Amino acid sequence: MNGKVRVGINGYGVIGKRVADAVTLQDDMEVAGVTFNHFDYRIQIAVERGYPVYTCSSDRMAIDAPIPIMGTLDDLIEQVDIMIDCTAKGVGAVNKYAYERAGIKAIFQGGEKHEISGVSFTAQVNYEEALNKQFVRIVSCNTTGLCRVMNALHKRSWVKKVRAVLMRRATDPWESHKSGLINTVMPETKVPSHQGPDVRTVIKGLNIVTMAGTASHNLSHIHYAMVETTRPLGRDEVRHAFLEEPRIAFINSKDGLVALNSVIELMRDLGRPRNDLWEVAVWEDALTVDENEIYMVFQVHNEAITIPETIDAIRAMTGMETNGMKSIEKTDLALGITKSFLPHNISPATYQSERSSSKTKLESVLI
Amino acid sequence: MNGKVRVGINGYGVIGKRVADAVTLQDDMEVAGVTFNHFDYRIQIAVERGYPVYTCSSDRMAIDAPIPIMGTLDDLIEQVDIMIDCTAKGVGAVNKYAYERAGIKAIFQGGEKHEISGVSFTAQVNYEEALNKQFVRIVSCNTTGLCRVMNALHKRSWVKKVRAVLMRRATDPWESHKSGLINTVMPETKVPSHQGPDVRTVIKGLNIVTMAGTASHNLSHIHYAMVETTRPLGRDEVRHAFLEEPRIAFINSKDGLVALNSVIELMRDLGRPRNDLWEVAVWEDALTVDENEIYMVFQVHNEAITIPETIDAIRAMTGMETNGMKSIEKTDLALGITKSFLPHNISPATYQSERSSSKTKLESVLI
Amino acid sequence: MNGKVRVGINGYGVIGKRVADAVTLQDDMEVAGVTFNHFDYRIQIAVERGYPVYTCSSDRMAIDAPIPIMGTLDDLIEQVDIMIDCTAKGVGAVNKYAYERAGIKAIFQGGEKHEISGVSFTAQVNYEEALNKQFVRIVSCNTTGLCRVMNALHKRSWVKKVRAVLMRRATDPWESHKSGLINTVMPETKVPSHQGPDVRTVIKGLNIVTMAGTASHNLSHIHYAMVETTRPLGRDEVRHAFLEEPRIAFINSKDGLVALNSVIELMRDLGRPRNDLWEVAVWEDALTVDENEIYMVFQVHNEAITIPETIDAIRAMTGMETNGMKSIEKTDLALGITKSFLPHNISPATYQSERSSSKTKLESVLI
Amino acid sequence: MNGKVRVGINGYGVIGKRVADAVTLQDDMEVAGVTFNHFDYRIQIAVERGYPVYTCSSDRMAIDAPIPIMGTLDDLIEQVDIMIDCTAKGVGAVNKYAYERAGIKAIFQGGEKHEISGVSFTAQVNYEEALNKQFVRIVSCNTTGLCRVMNALHKRSWVKKVRAVLMRRATDPWESHKSGLINTVMPETKVPSHQGPDVRTVIKGLNIVTMAGTASHNLSHIHYAMVETTRPLGRDEVRHAFLEEPRIAFINSKDGLVALNSVIELMRDLGRPRNDLWEVAVWEDALTVDENEIYMVFQVHNEAITIPETIDAIRAMTGMETNGMKSIEKTDLALGITKSFLPHNISPATYQSERSSSKTKLESVLI
Repeated sequence: MNGKVRVGINGYGVIGKRVADAVTLQDDMEVAGVTFNHFDYRIQIAVERGYPVYTCSSDRMAIDAPIPIMGTLDDLIEQVDIMIDCTAKGVGAVNKYAYERAGIKAIFQGGEKHEISGVSFTAQVNYEEALNKQFVRIVSCNTTGLCRVMNALHKRSWVKKVRAVLMRRATDPWESHKSGLINTVMPETKVPSHQGPDVRTVIKGLNIVTMAGTASHNLSHIHYAMVETTRPLGRDEVRHAFLEEPRIAFINSKDGLVALNSVIELMRDLGRPRNDLWEVAVWEDALTVDENEIYMVFQVHNEAITIPETIDAIRAMTGMETNGMKSIEKTDLALGITKSFLPHNISPATYQSERSSSKTKLESVLI
Repeated sequence: MNGKVRVGINGYGVIGKRVADAVTLQDDMEVAGVTFNHFDYRIQIAVERGYPVYTCSSDRMAIDAPIPIMGTLDDLIEQVDIMIDCTAKGVGAVNKYAYERAGIKAIFQGGEKHEISGVSFTAQVNYEEALNKQFVRIVSCNTTGLCRVMNALHKRSWVKKVRAVLMRRATDPWESHKSGLINTVMPETKVPSHQGPDVRTVIKGLNIVTMAGTASHNLSHIHYAMVETTRPLGRDEVRHAFLEEPRIAFINSKDGLVALNSVIELMRDLGRPRNDLWEVAVWEDALTVDENEIYMVFQVHNEAITIPETIDAIRAMTGMETNGMKSIEKTDLALGITKSFLPHNISPATYQSERSSSKTKLESVLI
Repeated sequence: MNGKVRVGINGYGVIGKRVADAVTLQDDMEVAGVTFNHFDYRIQIAVERGYPVYTCSSDRMAIDAPIPIMGTLDDLIEQVDIMIDCTAKGVGAVNKYAYERAGIKAIFQGGEKHEISGVSFTAQVNYEEALNKQFVRIVSCNTTGLCRVMNALHKRSWVKKVRAVLMRRATDPWESHKSGLINTVMPETKVPSHQGPDVRTVIKGLNIVTMAGTASHNLSHIHYAMVETTRPLGRDEVRHAFLEEPRIAFINSKDGLVALNSVIELMRDLGRPRNDLWEVAVWEDALTVDENEIYMVFQVHNEAITIPETIDAIRAMTGMETNGMKSIEKTDLALGITKSFLPHNISPATYQSERSSSKTKLESVLI
Repeated sequence: MNGKVRVGINGYGVIGKRVADAVTLQDDMEVAGVTFNHFDYRIQIAVERGYPVYTCSSDRMAIDAPIPIMGTLDDLIEQVDIMIDCTAKGVGAVNKYAYERAGIKAIFQGGEKHEISGVSFTAQVNYEEALNKQFVRIVSCNTTGLCRVMNALHKRSWVKKVRAVLMRRATDPWESHKSGLINTVMPETKVPSHQGPDVRTVIKGLNIVTMAGTASHNLSHIHYAMVETTRPLGRDEVRHAFLEEPRIAFINSKDGLVALNSVIELMRDLGRPRNDLWEVAVWEDALTVDENEIYMVFQVHNEAITIPETIDAIRAMTGMETNGMKSIEKTDLALGITKSFLPHNISPATYQSERSSSKTKLESVLI
């Protein structure tokens, strides 16, 4: 026993495989095992990485696979302090009974309803709410992105009403051969789309309406937000609010970062695993403020954005760390999450040391 | 001399070829000739249709093409009462000198600036403004769509502020092999995007902000609009405002019309030439009204939407018809523009006869 | 009774709706009714066009739809001389029992197996084989394209071996919002792909191997064929073989027809219904002949190519016309099928009158 | 002076940035500097990685960029033993004069003509030919892929004629917002396409014809090859020929590796930098052999495949290593190039130890 929290990952797909790798990078938790329900290259990589592999069904023999299998989901449940349920939408609600029976903690994904746990989580907004809880739900990628961005404004009591339009990616890269859109956009006809109300499970009382659609790409979501403000704001104070907010990073089209693909190319150039963008990437040059409104565009990488949230939730729920900002800082350091992708942009440290100086001086550091 | 207005079309591309066909379908105007600057299949079809063909350069021999050529642009100018300038962005401003010199009227496209003519035109908004003018500019596809939709609300003094997000098509189908996006969305970092201010050249004083981006499809633009209203409105009165507005038609996802591609497929099934959608197609089931705001999604077919506007502008500028609604009605009849694509939806006639009856009765007719 | 063959269409999807419209354009057959199994805009257009509508299930009340329904599939069967089964793959095999029981003739699509009818049909290859048969299968779009092209070579005993690679479209435009590929190509790992063997059900004894894949577009299939020949051939004689073959038309990138999308744009410009390309479009400038091999690229429009075949099969099976070439000519005239899309290309008539002249003279007419 | 070869990289784009990183991973060479001609995020990453940065123009002040610039291309030329010219097509031919003047060695890309160097290079085919040469050209991505695959067959005198169809990616991910295809395939009308003749600059005397096209994706090229053989071959011997050939790895759709995107997802899961696939990935289950022909499909990752070739060419040209297989082995180890992506596939070592055993035993190890 090394004192590390033992983490199980139920479902080794887009989210599960990233959670496993992120847990491995922390010094206070470890992967006790992962489950799978379909044999393919992905679970073979899990074996390669040394993750103990279990079947997600209760029948150990249910899956014929030429890899060493340690047991079933029930066996894995016995090995863990906390289970990260990364199964498909709605399956988590069923699995919850097994977790309850075994008395283990569990984290659910945004595909489940708020009621599954009563706590919907974004680390920088409501870490404290998750402290020592048995069940927590990490909100979906789009909701997480909105929560981070709007938290910077809401906590300053600047928000009168948020109106956002989300253009979602059609499918994920790994399954783009079997699902997806070709040459179209499909609007959601339900208004508001579910993300608006979902944000309010995290940021209570925020006045927000979202509309959504799906377009013919698979790289990321993109959000357009128009935030009516409670008072006239200067662009600088808005910008600084985002500079101070964790897990939001500015990008700028002057650097050639002009579209979803160029930001993902930057992640490739940065050597990020799976070119993951954990931060919300906000176009700095599109950030516009007029008398009563803030206009902004930002990229939300659906494959990656909730991963650091999951790590923080583990710390909160197990009580390992009671201070949310400390957990965030620890997670960010371990994963390489940054406030500034490019060397000539300001680093958080520089910003802290500079903020006592005059605005003029600060501005000369910032691009 | 048959008394028809003689129309020249300078530039036989996406817009020019459609204008030529639309003019041909009217009984009070005719195609005097079209110009081209590059020999390919498109201009061969013009020959097939019997349009006299001219070179757009002043050098008759400049283009080596195995088709009968009637002369140069200068020759065509002498043949026409009015020229529809369908050349690329910025070229119209140069051509204007030649039109002025010859003393002919001319219509420019939305790629040109408002100042080229001083009159920016959407038939149902400001037909009268174009009466007997020498130069008029038809606003761009996106601006036309916004003008039609917002006119229904603005003329009732319902609009406090319009916020719209436009997801544009990346390129047109005919040139999708040489330009376009793959697997990305590119936001415009200029906020507001040009469409908002451009709408105000037509609907004076409208409070509107637009944001824009380009996605990986070529079929149409899609708009998300959130209209803050001057007073609480019922969904019915908003819906009826759109039912009364020309060149806007409801579509409904209950009919399987769920995305840009399915609406274009409907145009194919309807036998529309080039599957053109001249109307703004508004998702009826997405039309949502809350206390102070209207939410809507609509499709703007960039290849087609400005064509009927051009026909009306010809009538206004030549003084053939001084009543805008009469011109619109005439154009719509000639082209087949409708308020209702599907038989079980309400027709304008039915609507007129029904509107005096009780709302309950009307609702039983409407889907 | 007007003496016209009464045609039923079971299934009103991509193929069914086109068959209905094509039958309507013939003077010797008529649409007795169409069936549907899902209410949406498509079947509403059928009503608009005056086609009697039936449910495809045997339960008349099974489908709740606000349109007049004439009865069930069983009722329609009683009304027709021949049924065109345009249902999904595999369903035709089940429906066959009902057709047999009723003693009506039926045509199946390429999704069914050859054994369903014992006769697999491409009009210009084996019209006679279908004469007075009760059941015939129209081979799939790709197989039809290959049959037409290879027939021109095979009937001259020029073919030693055909090697073809088919890059298929991912889905059809109408359903591109719910299925499709994004940013990938998916190869078929079964070699040969089914099209090669399927061609041999029509052209007996042809030595052909095909490989296939699916790419990220929905506009058409594209074929690359390399035909090893039994003797050295000149490019001219190969070209003339295709000029003499029905339902094959040359396109040329010199005319700007450089990709699948530009050919479809030509169909739009030609005013074709639903921009349908019934012909195999062969790139004339890619047609290359070396000592022992012919290389070619051609476009097969999956939505449209089998439609004229279906019309001919109706004539053959009902015995209305015993001469295949006469039926083809009649169908082509009714639909507007051509040997030459553009005016400066050679027409079949011109070709016929020129072919007795010297090759030099002919070449001056041909591009 | 540490004895390492000093490598300059002229052009820091898709290829240049990868060459820089690959050179850095070798123990016998180092990056002396890179040039750039446009300031954006990419060159900022170069700074971050510690590469000395030069302008590619001769005017040091030509580019205004907020990064430390060491000098011009001329300055860099003085610092290096060998320059890797990664500039755009045709620019290398101009740069050659400067390299010649300075008496340094240089490697050109496949965009340049064979005549630029007289030596066109694929390491496993003709390493010896490059020994101590001043100029060498690395053939293009598609040609490199074909050379590796066909080398396995050609060196065994199995090839009578190769027929291949290449479906190329439309553009690279980083620039997919400004170039690309949407919803189409564009065939090359020149037959044979240039790759066939280009392969013969490396594998002299190979009988090969290629046809090509471009499809609507950006992830990789895909090749379909049909190899007519000089004698009947068994599938096993063909398979073993590929198992013995470096830089070719089997993938299998049974592992879920069914399309270009799933193979790239595997690269992401493997933690490859920028998800690079340096190997030719050959679909094992599509590998089919009939009496006189081999049929195969393989993926060529255009961004990555020539990188290891460049490293080997540096070793050959500088004479550091005279044995090609030793250089290949060294490069492969440094980069992580493998014969087997998944643990349950055979490793080269296993294969070597197994190949003396009976085929039956071997087959039980191989999938």
